[in-house]
Amino acid sequence: MKLNRIYSFLKTDIDQIEKELETAIESDSRLLNQASLHLLQAGGKRIRPVFVLLSAKFGEYDINSVKNAAVALELIHMASLVHDDVIDDAELRRGKPTIKSQWDNRIAMYTGDYIFARGLEYMTNIKNPEAHQILSHTIVELCKGEIAQIKDKYRCDQNLRDYLLRIKRKTALLIAVSCQLGAIASGAPEEVHRRLFRFGYHVGMSYQITDDILDLTASEEELGKPAGSDLWQGNITLPVLYAMEDPALRSEIERVSENTSAETMKKVIASILASDAIERSHRVSRMYLDKALEDLEYLPQNRVKKTLKNVANFIGKRKY
Amino acid sequence: MKLNRIYSFLKTDIDQIEKELETAIESDSRLLNQASLHLLQAGGKRIRPVFVLLSAKFGEYDINSVKNAAVALELIHMASLVHDDVIDDAELRRGKPTIKSQWDNRIAMYTGDYIFARGLEYMTNIKNPEAHQILSHTIVELCKGEIAQIKDKYRCDQNLRDYLLRIKRKTALLIAVSCQLGAIASGAPEEVHRRLFRFGYHVGMSYQITDDILDLTASEEELGKPAGSDLWQGNITLPVLYAMEDPALRSEIERVSENTSAETMKKVIASILASDAIERSHRVSRMYLDKALEDLEYLPQNRVKKTLKNVANFIGKRKY
Repeated sequence: MKLNRIYSFLKTDIDQIEKELETAIESDSRLLNQASLHLLQAGGKRIRPVFVLLSAKFGEYDINSVKNAAVALELIHMASLVHDDVIDDAELRRGKPTIKSQWDNRIAMYTGDYIFARGLEYMTNIKNPEAHQILSHTIVELCKGEIAQIKDKYRCDQNLRDYLLRIKRKTALLIAVSCQLGAIASGAPEEVHRRLFRFGYHVGMSYQITDDILDLTASEEELGKPAGSDLWQGNITLPVLYAMEDPALRSEIERVSENTSAETMKKVIASILASDAIERSHRVSRMYLDKALEDLEYLPQNRVKKTLKNVANFIGKRKY
Repeated sequence: MKLNRIYSFLKTDIDQIEKELETAIESDSRLLNQASLHLLQAGGKRIRPVFVLLSAKFGEYDINSVKNAAVALELIHMASLVHDDVIDDAELRRGKPTIKSQWDNRIAMYTGDYIFARGLEYMTNIKNPEAHQILSHTIVELCKGEIAQIKDKYRCDQNLRDYLLRIKRKTALLIAVSCQLGAIASGAPEEVHRRLFRFGYHVGMSYQITDDILDLTASEEELGKPAGSDLWQGNITLPVLYAMEDPALRSEIERVSENTSAETMKKVIASILASDAIERSHRVSRMYLDKALEDLEYLPQNRVKKTLKNVANFIGKRKY
């Protein structure tokens, strides 16, 4: 089942958001337009806008208001990817050259800044001070997560806690806040938006762990970049942490650097896949997914609850 | 007369903002703390906070509320400098190594992102949706200005309009908005904050033109970086545009690139100084300053009007 089939009843609204995203990144600079459009057209699941819209269904749903939060969150996410690629020195994202590789780091920095600023501008159409406090706090955490990622690169003595805090800041909080802000923008009760925050947080953790597993298990074609790119770039993910519990594997992994050959990387990945690291990581992802599904139990009965459940299951269990 | 003598009655409040800036940039990352503190301790005139506070005197002045806007604007300004140094590949700022030169471009990108995010977080303590719309719009313009600066680097066929639009976006708007938001945060009438915006815009234009003149006329010691750095980095400023009206000087300037030797740069600068370019630029700066002083006429009589006038005169006419 495809993700967009799950929320087909939102198609008109999602299409509107896609159009709005195109409008949002337009500017009078040709270079900036090219770089931003390149990024937009590389696609993406748009799960943050989807969560904003679904969560807004718990209040007085008005697409003309809630779309501002949906566009803002996707733009902020996109901007963070552009800066992320600079940090990771990544050549490919979703099968396309990254902005920093097609242009350069400086263009990537400013394209990210611009897209981010446009996201903020959209957000200010939501006239709720609480929403802005929540979002700005999340952006600070997002930055801290990215900085931790730089600091923790190729650092093999990090532990599970370091990893979990990092993915919380890098991924889970923005998804949590997508759910929360959708609910706040539509005036849902506090009890509901707090629960949706927890739901989004748990889904986000599960999502990132699955992403980190797929980086090792999926094919280059599915990933749109070489398998094992994370480890190659020095990002020590959950399966890698588990694999390092085996001393032989640990010493293999400790030798990985950006200068490691593609051939050696393939061997290291094969060793990780042969261990129980993937299975154990799947269990952790599944645990977060279960918590997310449990959060849904506490939400008022309505027709989107089922949809949220399906989306959560999809992104927690997706194969690529 | 020193700038801080002009607004000595604000000393307690300015000191509080300085302390708050130190608190604002603290994080649990040592690297980030070092980089941010390095930037903070390099100093700066803090003119944006000063304008926020002075403008707030036109309403119900409450330092505990208005300080949030003052801190936010200085942090956003600081963040833009950090990214600016990446774009300009600048080694020195205010006599100290830039973050990108002491660490690297990636650290500079994220330090900028973090400081910016912290600025936003402070700003959300101002519970006025209009203030956020104004600020987010200004940030978008700031980004456009920086992108134009990249595009216009070493481009000798640009005109006065390109230059004025660029410095409006890069500098003047944020100063204009500092004045406006100070007034909004203290609940001053719309008529007042609109006029303060115009005042700040005119001061900002005058300020940047003076800055661009000083880059050529001041000594390396006064500037904290080599004289003529702007031109060397490809930033075509007002005096350079005027100098290029002379065909011989134009061909000298057209040959400047990042590979030009320090010796050749000195000759080019001497030629510019020997032309009427500096004098003509001073006249434009003075014209903006006069407009700023005229804006003050329309503001209600109070004791800070005189201070605003003195600050405007100071920063429009400063020698370095």
